[in-house]
Amino acid sequence: MELKLAFIGMGNVGRAFARLLDARRCELAGQHGITWVVTGIATARHGCSISEEGLDLLDAVHRIESGQNINALDRGEPVSDPAEAIDRCNADILFETTPLSAADGQPAISYISRALLRRISVVTANKGPVAYGYPELRRLAAGRGVMFRFEGAVMDGCPVFNLAQFCLPGARILSFAGVLNSTTNLILTGMEDGRSMEDSLADAQRLGIVEADPVNDLDGWDAAIKALALANVLLSIDEPASLAHRTGIRELKAEDMTSALAEGDVIRLVARAQVLSGRATITVKPERVPRSSALGCVRGTSNVLIMKTDLMGEIGVIENDPGIAQTAYALLSDMIVIHDALTRSHGR
Amino acid sequence: MELKLAFIGMGNVGRAFARLLDARRCELAGQHGITWVVTGIATARHGCSISEEGLDLLDAVHRIESGQNINALDRGEPVSDPAEAIDRCNADILFETTPLSAADGQPAISYISRALLRRISVVTANKGPVAYGYPELRRLAAGRGVMFRFEGAVMDGCPVFNLAQFCLPGARILSFAGVLNSTTNLILTGMEDGRSMEDSLADAQRLGIVEADPVNDLDGWDAAIKALALANVLLSIDEPASLAHRTGIRELKAEDMTSALAEGDVIRLVARAQVLSGRATITVKPERVPRSSALGCVRGTSNVLIMKTDLMGEIGVIENDPGIAQTAYALLSDMIVIHDALTRSHGR
Repeated sequence: MELKLAFIGMGNVGRAFARLLDARRCELAGQHGITWVVTGIATARHGCSISEEGLDLLDAVHRIESGQNINALDRGEPVSDPAEAIDRCNADILFETTPLSAADGQPAISYISRALLRRISVVTANKGPVAYGYPELRRLAAGRGVMFRFEGAVMDGCPVFNLAQFCLPGARILSFAGVLNSTTNLILTGMEDGRSMEDSLADAQRLGIVEADPVNDLDGWDAAIKALALANVLLSIDEPASLAHRTGIRELKAEDMTSALAEGDVIRLVARAQVLSGRATITVKPERVPRSSALGCVRGTSNVLIMKTDLMGEIGVIENDPGIAQTAYALLSDMIVIHDALTRSHGR
Repeated sequence: MELKLAFIGMGNVGRAFARLLDARRCELAGQHGITWVVTGIATARHGCSISEEGLDLLDAVHRIESGQNINALDRGEPVSDPAEAIDRCNADILFETTPLSAADGQPAISYISRALLRRISVVTANKGPVAYGYPELRRLAAGRGVMFRFEGAVMDGCPVFNLAQFCLPGARILSFAGVLNSTTNLILTGMEDGRSMEDSLADAQRLGIVEADPVNDLDGWDAAIKALALANVLLSIDEPASLAHRTGIRELKAEDMTSALAEGDVIRLVARAQVLSGRATITVKPERVPRSSALGCVRGTSNVLIMKTDLMGEIGVIENDPGIAQTAYALLSDMIVIHDALTRSHGR
């Protein structure tokens, strides 16, 4: 079976995934029996193109990177907008990596719904749809017999959603705590090393690690939305998780860090989820944690998630120094999971 | 499908698993569609019994705990030894938890081979068979169309083997480093807190955490065998992994710890595996690592495994304060994985 793939969004993540997919063509065919063709690419600023025969993915990447439009790709048929591309791409899997509003997960949620309704499985690297649309999108996918996967939504391609789904059979996750936002952790680590919050932030911006407007990071929104996404999926509660408290790191003073360090502690922006009266509840705030602890040991852009379970005690997953390559891998790993499920359901 | 289960070995781990299995009977049936019956129990000192209709598992546990023999269990037919029990139990899955020789993995390996040859899937919590018999046992299982699983062999039920198999599709593990032995880590943590090695060891023995004869732990054998098991499975090298170097913690002095601490480091017994000239090679030795690092942050009986991969960068898994309940969970999780595979292959 040749997988028909479509892309919506071709920013840094989409292009990194496109390159990875091309680079691993032989391994995917040889080790996983996966061959693929790209039947649609939709962007907001560089046009949209569909093709039954298959588009040249790397050519599209090059055109986008040199500021050109992809409407005139070889074998491609231009379409007017992403919605039409979804309707007409006839894909097995849509990779959704559009820029989205952190406040409501749009337009990603409507693109994903549209694809699922057309029986196209969806892989996203966006946290918004999982934080704000999960119960509905899950039901929609199940009802149409397709899959909705999102390993890259939190901690890039580090297994968190897949770990819970595939590696803890028979056990339940009761609560979790994590350091989920790389920007604030980089700043906090800088402050640990004696730099000011402003200097640490400026350094990170120079390195291109932090967005020009880091308000979503500094105010704890990014961590909160990731925790909502995790809670919706990991805690087996039907109702969407809700945010009970959110404090970012803006109000932290150098003295707070100094006094923590003096007692062997560090400060981390910790997102916690627990189930209270049957509802999954999130809190995000700076916490003093022992420097030598699973939460305290992640420095720089590294992340950690600690899960408390009923039968397996407490386990943690650490991701060291992630970059865009790891987000691209998340999309690849979801694609392989979907391929394996499709292959099984076709009895091959 | 009702799973027919057999037990070989009914020590602490086997009995904890038997209790867990009984306690989760409703969840297993309701959530996983698993019903089960015990068709054989074999012990070295308390007799062996088989039954087509099913033995009373908790009655067997109680008899063993009160020093009685299980030959006369209700509906049971006594058999002479574990080998005969394997031959005649007619089980779908054998749970192997016998005491074994750390030097060669026997008699576990011969029991496991015997079961696999009879097309019985095997779940073990023993590291020896994976360290010393893996390539053969894997081939044997594949040849007979059954499964050989061993999540409990390293880090109890914390997903390490399952994580590599199910959660890193398309990626390769290139090397790993881990703190895998709880006894030495408990002693090293005690020394960090200012106690002597002898006092820390005695405390641990009083708590029942450490064996009466801790030579396998102190000399690094336990960590080395676990690393061999991990390397055989995780590093995708056909030839068995080999041990290049092993130093335990006996020669460590209080001064070594003091000088490490003075520079922000701690000492951990670190097992490392890498691939050199196409061969997987293990080293085990005490290492100075930053106190605030993934290897340094595990204290007491906690374990950690850090894996370097080709596509997913570096990820780590932490198990906090494991006990026998987590080893029992390992057996349960392997049972569910086997059941799911059997169900799929039966097309149900």
